[in-house]
Amino acid sequence: MLRCWKTVLSALSYSTTASATTRMFQEKGIRTITLCDAKTRNSLSLSTMNEIINHLTTNDGDPGLRCILLRAEGPVFSSGHNLKEFDSSKKGTEEQREVFAACTRLMLQVVASPVPVVAVVDGLAAAAGCQLVAQCDISLCTPNSTFSTPGASFGLFCSTPGIAVARTVNRKMALRMLLTGLPITAEEAYLAGLVSKVVMAESLDSELKTITDAIESKSRSVISLGKKFFYQQIERDLQTAYQLGEETMVNNLSLRDGQEGIKSFIEKRKPTWEHS
Amino acid sequence: MLRCWKTVLSALSYSTTASATTRMFQEKGIRTITLCDAKTRNSLSLSTMNEIINHLTTNDGDPGLRCILLRAEGPVFSSGHNLKEFDSSKKGTEEQREVFAACTRLMLQVVASPVPVVAVVDGLAAAAGCQLVAQCDISLCTPNSTFSTPGASFGLFCSTPGIAVARTVNRKMALRMLLTGLPITAEEAYLAGLVSKVVMAESLDSELKTITDAIESKSRSVISLGKKFFYQQIERDLQTAYQLGEETMVNNLSLRDGQEGIKSFIEKRKPTWEHS
Amino acid sequence: MLRCWKTVLSALSYSTTASATTRMFQEKGIRTITLCDAKTRNSLSLSTMNEIINHLTTNDGDPGLRCILLRAEGPVFSSGHNLKEFDSSKKGTEEQREVFAACTRLMLQVVASPVPVVAVVDGLAAAAGCQLVAQCDISLCTPNSTFSTPGASFGLFCSTPGIAVARTVNRKMALRMLLTGLPITAEEAYLAGLVSKVVMAESLDSELKTITDAIESKSRSVISLGKKFFYQQIERDLQTAYQLGEETMVNNLSLRDGQEGIKSFIEKRKPTWEHS
Repeated sequence: MLRCWKTVLSALSYSTTASATTRMFQEKGIRTITLCDAKTRNSLSLSTMNEIINHLTTNDGDPGLRCILLRAEGPVFSSGHNLKEFDSSKKGTEEQREVFAACTRLMLQVVASPVPVVAVVDGLAAAAGCQLVAQCDISLCTPNSTFSTPGASFGLFCSTPGIAVARTVNRKMALRMLLTGLPITAEEAYLAGLVSKVVMAESLDSELKTITDAIESKSRSVISLGKKFFYQQIERDLQTAYQLGEETMVNNLSLRDGQEGIKSFIEKRKPTWEHS
Repeated sequence: MLRCWKTVLSALSYSTTASATTRMFQEKGIRTITLCDAKTRNSLSLSTMNEIINHLTTNDGDPGLRCILLRAEGPVFSSGHNLKEFDSSKKGTEEQREVFAACTRLMLQVVASPVPVVAVVDGLAAAAGCQLVAQCDISLCTPNSTFSTPGASFGLFCSTPGIAVARTVNRKMALRMLLTGLPITAEEAYLAGLVSKVVMAESLDSELKTITDAIESKSRSVISLGKKFFYQQIERDLQTAYQLGEETMVNNLSLRDGQEGIKSFIEKRKPTWEHS
Repeated sequence: MLRCWKTVLSALSYSTTASATTRMFQEKGIRTITLCDAKTRNSLSLSTMNEIINHLTTNDGDPGLRCILLRAEGPVFSSGHNLKEFDSSKKGTEEQREVFAACTRLMLQVVASPVPVVAVVDGLAAAAGCQLVAQCDISLCTPNSTFSTPGASFGLFCSTPGIAVARTVNRKMALRMLLTGLPITAEEAYLAGLVSKVVMAESLDSELKTITDAIESKSRSVISLGKKFFYQQIERDLQTAYQLGEETMVNNLSLRDGQEGIKSFIEKRKPTWEHS
């Protein structure tokens, strides 16, 4: 019976994994991770962060996986860490440290994922929730979404959220957010570089399809190589970046799909990717 | 009589220090440094820069100090250096060098200040005046404000202003400003990341109150720790930044006000900060 | 006869050099390099890139040269590399490597040029064409212009274009462009920092004149010193940048035109530059 269902699921090309606080669903190449713990405002407790890491990494070497979406249920995308995990009368320093270590693992896994990770925000993204949006490769939000890093209001400055925020948002806006904790609007977030695009709620699905179609129309191995190089080169000086870039371009052309892309262009036909 | 006044001043929680070119005024936690040398277009002469450094550092370890505002009288926020100090027929190389060394000390003191430093611009900020705005943590301006780095028009390229400008403004706009010297509008400055917000002149005081209230509602020691870490992490690679960030978060939680913030959140009450 | 023409040309202060794919024209201090190979959508073949490098470097030490414009004929500013040069069945790895090495030389020559290099876009700038725009010091575009980095659609991720793009465009927009290959509008390009200004097609010439007049009104040697320092300081930490900046300012003041600028300001007269 179990095997039967597996066959059915496989035929339908989707799979679902669920827990109390997150849900993973994959249809064809698009995996959707949904924060579904609205009663805690989708707080990023230690267990929730470990679940997201699991959802990100499960079978992530499968050539069929092409893109990961991060979504949330309820009016809050994520309110950030679960502050109860920081009460020193109940949790020791080592337990607190483990929460931040998991947060780092989560953020670096978004970067390390071989496929693009896209945040889809329709509500408030605060503190480590805002960090998660800032750390994703691409992020979309609806006009009513807001973003804040208000940790200092609860005695804990958003130092780690600032790491992701300050690497995409200009400094004057990043420090206004971090030092005041005041929220910014979707429009301000777009202008400052925190989100890639603001999309009306009713257009969100079609905009997402435009993005995932664009990604799925390409070779997974080429996208993977390009994403990896992007995060390498932005941390190097210009000359070194270009030296490494030359090597990367030559390596890209030596991929099977690199040559297939070039040949299909010259022969004016659609490419057939092997994603390798 | 003097002591009597001091008592009165202390009771009123404000103090004033004034010179020919700058004025310092502190009311409760908010210190305002005002450039009041409109006849030189608030030029940043060596003595004026040293005065501002003094205003920034005087009793800056006092837990009562929470935020510093940088304002100006007259239509020009600041026109930058006093060019007379660069006439080689009257000033030697060592004297010129001392001007730039003071400028560096001023800029690094803004960064090193344990409290947020906010520039409030209502007019033209040019050259080192524009640098000062760019170097502040947060900056506001009115719609009629303009910004420029026109040093090359006077034979002295705005090389040092470019250091602050290029760290918050995107490169295409920074180089347009530096290579042409042409002014940009308040709106362009906001979109490019030079100011945190554009505010109508009649709303400036209420917007400033929103910002200073937000800062004053938090713990000074938490804000101070967070500001210091921000300027550390933005100069590190992502992985190192996160490693240092984990330590910073754990250290933050070990502060008295760190735990007070967490406990007040859990107990659903207002926190009582000791600012330590 | 030839010498006669040379004399005439010199008297008219302009010169023209042309090939099949590019054209160079210099009138007074403004050199215009035009991509004129519309039939290949101004592709940046190896020979075209080498021509542009030649146009950039020819007599670039001449004090009369003050600014270089990069323009294009036809609806496409440039479509990027000539993909036929990447067909491994016809070109070996060393030949491919030479294309990317030339691309690096071109980009670094834009940075190394002693005068400002301004891209003027009226159409599509794609892949390495978009890279060229991003690498220029200043860039203007018309409202109908679009920008994309669609290399992955042809099997070759825009890894090297991403180097220039990510150094002026915020990260969320850079990765949206690179991972999806979808084009962005002129307005999006301006807001994200890819172009310095969007200008109506009918105003392009007057806006260009404003920019080149501003550059020509200054000393070439001062602009050159400032441009060189800009690209040095943005790759250093803040404190080192300011230390180097102090030296640069003192050196600037020791230039003949540095002192002429200061003196002309004090004496309230127009400066007379020697550009040295």
